[in-house]
Amino acid sequence: MSEIIHAALDAMGGDNAPKEIIKGAVKAVKANPGLKVTLTGPEQVLREELKKYQYPEDRIAVCDAPEIIEMGEPPVEAIRTKRNSSMVKGLQLVKSGECDAFVTAGSTGAALAGGQLLVGRIRGIERPPLAPLIPSAKGPVLLIDCGANMDPRPTMLRQFAQMGTVYMRGMTGLESPRVGLLNVGTEEEKGNALAKEAHALLKECEGINFVGNIEAREIIEGNVDIVVTDAFTGNAVLKMLEGTASTLMHMIKDALMAGFLTKIGALLIKPALKGLMSKFDASQYGGAPMLGLKGLVVKAHGNSTSAEIANALAQCVVFKEKKINDNIKKEMNL
Amino acid sequence: MSEIIHAALDAMGGDNAPKEIIKGAVKAVKANPGLKVTLTGPEQVLREELKKYQYPEDRIAVCDAPEIIEMGEPPVEAIRTKRNSSMVKGLQLVKSGECDAFVTAGSTGAALAGGQLLVGRIRGIERPPLAPLIPSAKGPVLLIDCGANMDPRPTMLRQFAQMGTVYMRGMTGLESPRVGLLNVGTEEEKGNALAKEAHALLKECEGINFVGNIEAREIIEGNVDIVVTDAFTGNAVLKMLEGTASTLMHMIKDALMAGFLTKIGALLIKPALKGLMSKFDASQYGGAPMLGLKGLVVKAHGNSTSAEIANALAQCVVFKEKKINDNIKKEMNL
Repeated sequence: MSEIIHAALDAMGGDNAPKEIIKGAVKAVKANPGLKVTLTGPEQVLREELKKYQYPEDRIAVCDAPEIIEMGEPPVEAIRTKRNSSMVKGLQLVKSGECDAFVTAGSTGAALAGGQLLVGRIRGIERPPLAPLIPSAKGPVLLIDCGANMDPRPTMLRQFAQMGTVYMRGMTGLESPRVGLLNVGTEEEKGNALAKEAHALLKECEGINFVGNIEAREIIEGNVDIVVTDAFTGNAVLKMLEGTASTLMHMIKDALMAGFLTKIGALLIKPALKGLMSKFDASQYGGAPMLGLKGLVVKAHGNSTSAEIANALAQCVVFKEKKINDNIKKEMNL
Repeated sequence: MSEIIHAALDAMGGDNAPKEIIKGAVKAVKANPGLKVTLTGPEQVLREELKKYQYPEDRIAVCDAPEIIEMGEPPVEAIRTKRNSSMVKGLQLVKSGECDAFVTAGSTGAALAGGQLLVGRIRGIERPPLAPLIPSAKGPVLLIDCGANMDPRPTMLRQFAQMGTVYMRGMTGLESPRVGLLNVGTEEEKGNALAKEAHALLKECEGINFVGNIEAREIIEGNVDIVVTDAFTGNAVLKMLEGTASTLMHMIKDALMAGFLTKIGALLIKPALKGLMSKFDASQYGGAPMLGLKGLVVKAHGNSTSAEIANALAQCVVFKEKKINDNIKKEMNL
């Protein structure tokens, strides 16, 4: 616990930058005595914003980065040409070893491309996945991959299961997290070509607790701790989860506001519903780690508030304390 | 409207067979004057069950089929060997031309295999998709494919869009139903290899109203009328939709029953919530059609009650009245 963890933070990434990002950094350093944060972005802007807060000044630094990568830019090109952007500067701080981790709420594509191009893969890792923790009825579930590899090879899914196991063991303390393969049915012979081949590999894989195929509805029921899939399917089911929950909640709200008695009813149940919804608030998990890199890159939601940014930074602390990357190399003989 | 529509109905398929199935047939013939139903299953059992009802006897017939295909059986083998099953007998009635359509709540795999092997494809159709109507905030959306083709070619997705357009135009009266391609982002260059190639084909395809890529969350928002995808992804997002809605509803119920005030609140809002939930009840659409066959095969949910069976039979009536298959051939030059 006495070790210092040094995280770079993209102060210009996301819808609420730089205000919420900087507020999140202040929260995080106050909550984590071992944490030091270097903000990347236009120095004047950041210093001006920092003036609003009282904080331990030796634990928040600023790295000047006048350029910004916009959401719509072609990722690889943006990473290659905007060398002075808040994203590239932050990733370079990890590459150089000055920082242990980088957190951004900016372009997912640029973060993924930059993670691979600048930070680089752990030797032996085929492709780093993006792996958000998502809410379920029984606690967080790691959805791996959910954004990086659209057409993965079956062996890549095996590595996702291995890295996910080390990550969940370190982050949640579960000794033997359950790994499920997302599929259209529980029977072994079900699925597309990728799922069938991956199933065979996962069954033979040592060091993971593979419980077989699971259907998408089991994710939210919380029947496994890690869901292995390709990024295309992972992204589709995550967005379906978010869309269904939000559409349902809006429709419930509209239905309750439509009548006098239901309005009274709504008042009575409001606290209970709020408590319930907070269980389904993914921001508590603080963004999605990109696993298999030589440092940690965490992608926070584009609409992150200070709370999510602070949680993402807290994730970096645990990631280093639990030596996740060392354990990935050890467990996978890399 | 004066034409007779003749549907075969698997009286032994699903969790509630034969009681709910036969009850559904009775409902359907009473509601649809032009409908004749032939039940397939063990003759004695069906006749015994039919005795409970009053119905126009010239419009419900029985075709003896002593065998039953169980849910877990390997589909192709079951179709090939159980020639006297309620499933095979029903499909043969369509093949011979005696019936226009076949409805089953039995094994999805067997229905899909039997549809192709026994009823057969319309000449020129690469692969028939299974296409359920699913609920959205703005009405039903056709999810095509959702069960049949796990690793489709891009050209197959183009055919899904074309068939889906004819189906939705006929069934809902929309002149120009909006077609979206399920993808991880709206930009044209996004997605896996299949989605990228399919996007290019759909953009050039005449006779459909292609509105571009859509993300999974837009399905439930109801931003398109037809969602084109491979069966693996389609199945995953549908199960995520069902799982999220049902888990959320259970958690809300539990939260409301936990306190005294919330219990009173729950009583006040119950009718409003019930009305809302009925909007999200997929059974009103009466099962998923398998499109592109020489007749119609409709797969109803395994837990179908009489209402869903009656709706599935009503779907067969509209399918024939609107000459969906003739229009598929015409529109696609088959």
